[in-house]
Amino acid sequence: MPGPRIQPRTLKGFRDYLPEAMLPRERIIETARRVFRSYGFSPIDTPALEYLDILLGKGSQETDKQLYRFQDHGGRDVGLRFDLTVPLARFAAQYIGQLGTPFKRYHIGSVWRGENTQRGRYREFMQCDFDTIGTTAAAADAETILVVRDLLSAIGFQNFTIRVNDRALLNGLLEKFGLSDKATPVLRELDKLAKNGPEKVLNELTTAVGASTDQAQQVLALVQLAGPNDVVLVELERLAVGSALGERGVARLKEVVSIVNGVPSKSGLVKIDPSIARGLDYYTGLVLETTLDDLPDIGSIASGGRYDNLAELYTNQQLPGIGASLGLDRLLAAMEELGMIEPVRTPAEIFIPFFESDRLVDYLQLAAELRSAGLGVEVFPEPKKLGKQLQYADKRGHRVALVAGEQEFAAGECQVKDLVSGGSVTVSYSARDAEAIVTEIRRILAN
Amino acid sequence: MPGPRIQPRTLKGFRDYLPEAMLPRERIIETARRVFRSYGFSPIDTPALEYLDILLGKGSQETDKQLYRFQDHGGRDVGLRFDLTVPLARFAAQYIGQLGTPFKRYHIGSVWRGENTQRGRYREFMQCDFDTIGTTAAAADAETILVVRDLLSAIGFQNFTIRVNDRALLNGLLEKFGLSDKATPVLRELDKLAKNGPEKVLNELTTAVGASTDQAQQVLALVQLAGPNDVVLVELERLAVGSALGERGVARLKEVVSIVNGVPSKSGLVKIDPSIARGLDYYTGLVLETTLDDLPDIGSIASGGRYDNLAELYTNQQLPGIGASLGLDRLLAAMEELGMIEPVRTPAEIFIPFFESDRLVDYLQLAAELRSAGLGVEVFPEPKKLGKQLQYADKRGHRVALVAGEQEFAAGECQVKDLVSGGSVTVSYSARDAEAIVTEIRRILAN
Repeated sequence: MPGPRIQPRTLKGFRDYLPEAMLPRERIIETARRVFRSYGFSPIDTPALEYLDILLGKGSQETDKQLYRFQDHGGRDVGLRFDLTVPLARFAAQYIGQLGTPFKRYHIGSVWRGENTQRGRYREFMQCDFDTIGTTAAAADAETILVVRDLLSAIGFQNFTIRVNDRALLNGLLEKFGLSDKATPVLRELDKLAKNGPEKVLNELTTAVGASTDQAQQVLALVQLAGPNDVVLVELERLAVGSALGERGVARLKEVVSIVNGVPSKSGLVKIDPSIARGLDYYTGLVLETTLDDLPDIGSIASGGRYDNLAELYTNQQLPGIGASLGLDRLLAAMEELGMIEPVRTPAEIFIPFFESDRLVDYLQLAAELRSAGLGVEVFPEPKKLGKQLQYADKRGHRVALVAGEQEFAAGECQVKDLVSGGSVTVSYSARDAEAIVTEIRRILAN
Repeated sequence: MPGPRIQPRTLKGFRDYLPEAMLPRERIIETARRVFRSYGFSPIDTPALEYLDILLGKGSQETDKQLYRFQDHGGRDVGLRFDLTVPLARFAAQYIGQLGTPFKRYHIGSVWRGENTQRGRYREFMQCDFDTIGTTAAAADAETILVVRDLLSAIGFQNFTIRVNDRALLNGLLEKFGLSDKATPVLRELDKLAKNGPEKVLNELTTAVGASTDQAQQVLALVQLAGPNDVVLVELERLAVGSALGERGVARLKEVVSIVNGVPSKSGLVKIDPSIARGLDYYTGLVLETTLDDLPDIGSIASGGRYDNLAELYTNQQLPGIGASLGLDRLLAAMEELGMIEPVRTPAEIFIPFFESDRLVDYLQLAAELRSAGLGVEVFPEPKKLGKQLQYADKRGHRVALVAGEQEFAAGECQVKDLVSGGSVTVSYSARDAEAIVTEIRRILAN
């Protein structure tokens, strides 16, 4: 006899993924893998646990506080990784000699942060990063944008905007405006522009940041520049005149956008947006964010940028690079909201009810033939009443049922039932020849 | 200036996966997902961290000791999951009403155990489980075997043996031999038969376990039964006469094997092996292990069994089921040893050197066209010397290089270079028409 029962429950701030939530997650992750690989990015993985000194002080004070840390069985101070960037820096420092450059990797894995769950945040979430390390080439910047564009297209989005800017340009202009010493707080305010609006940002810049009204207005005029890329570029070039850093930044931005636009695409737009700042100190060149035109308020679903030195905390070797990250949870929320996710609980399109109790092997043979044609098939395991089994199939979201009783077996036939329309077609079927069934299923699935 | 550098290193007992190791891992995991889904198993996921009371006392005393446990930011006692079975039991208890039965799920994820690394064990490893919950049907047992068979075939194995036995049969026979009260230690000894040999097991049975010589010899005769399935079955039926449990067990085993053998397969053999015990108390019906005929010593690469009650610690609802697990690390070690893994560091078959510095957009356009034909293409990001770039491609393991300089662009051509044979073919190419190139690449890849 078991002891007193334990209440089954999920730890606060954590979540289970049921099939209905997991199926679209897996689909997106697999699409991401396929697109990353199609550009030659290789997968890597690193441990969930790292030595504490590898993790501490690498993010913000906030991430330090949120770190899950403890002592392992050998008394070592360890922590759960809070992002995939610190492990990448450690990894690159350790192996770059052996890997060679350029090194292109993707990494998809869970990270942990003891966040305040009242903000609707989870303490475990998946990150999906790709980076090109060891090159400062404009081609790598352009490729990062191309990957984001291909990935969102492959997932099924058509109307999205990849917003790009350049941190060298921003820093050059801030220098020109006399705001060099306040660059970090200024950029942090700019990140809030979409959320807080220009008036509030203007106010914060003059009060909290300490810029003059004139400086704040210059900054605001800059980040509110809008229009076609070539118009914005002309304006940015004019503003940058006299700042070596600014001129270099705008020239690079122009080059990268021109490369990207040389590669045609049916979906997505690349737009120069001087308000994209991405507050982290880390970035030094191209920065990018991606918004869905139909759901701009959801925020960026793919973001990233160029950095000068990935792993300076672990190695003398300077490793410049560029990377971006897919916002998986946001992306799924957006797809949900846009009706892009079918509410199914099964990965198998086809359901075979098992209702002639001595025909199990026939049902399994039919299933095996359909699987070798690349279809997913679930066979019910118990010879229950047909009606009950079809209810089960309906609840799960199977698309097609193949109904075969003694009558059908005797006649060399099978009923192919469309579980959405309710319609049914009888097609010929004999063991080892499921061709007519496959054809009819494909016709239904294509609808 | 950064402070003193931190030694980049991996935590003791943990490992990084470099591209060369990660590419085959991902390939196997994706194959497993595809096969699981083709049978209607749905993905789920659960948190890495669970409340400690969910995890403690669910495995052995050893797993309790190995548990990574600590207090989270809210002072809760938590632990890292040490397997995917306890989370499944907790999950099923929590959601089975909503999910309905039969519930078929797969779960692929990392688990953590503070093992003694001197035994060559890692403290983080990936489990790959699938289970069918809420049915006692023989069809579910047969399907579990079919999934293992399909999965190993899909990975590329042909010669493997799925060894099956039945715990009810074993328990019935032990009862008949008068060893009911010693069933658990007897089964544990039997698990060591392949490793220790019959003499040592016989000795242990009579000394450590306390069986009589006669009893030990009966057990040993049973587990050494060999031959074609029908011969072994006749012998088992004879032995089971008079034991209700034994008769039930052998009848079920016969039924399951007959269902499986009704579904034809080009690879793998299903063999009744009375020595398969799988020591866990947990199992009550079919048990299975899988060995590679060419590498029997590597041990079982896919194992599992039927249980009567998955989640009794968390719910009153009885949840019988059957499941199995793929031994990912062993499988990869076997594939390595059998030369089934190509030593490549890139997922992209094709490499495009970038050596005409003003032709970057043309290279990227060509790459985009090949990608839409489903091929993986890496474009070098910097216009370095062709020879250097081809060395890089060689080191990475790209299969084909597409070489196009001014001469080729002018002539509407491209060189398709086989990087293994060293041979090169010139084919026609113009922007937006890469058909001839794709055909030539497919010819090379097919070799």
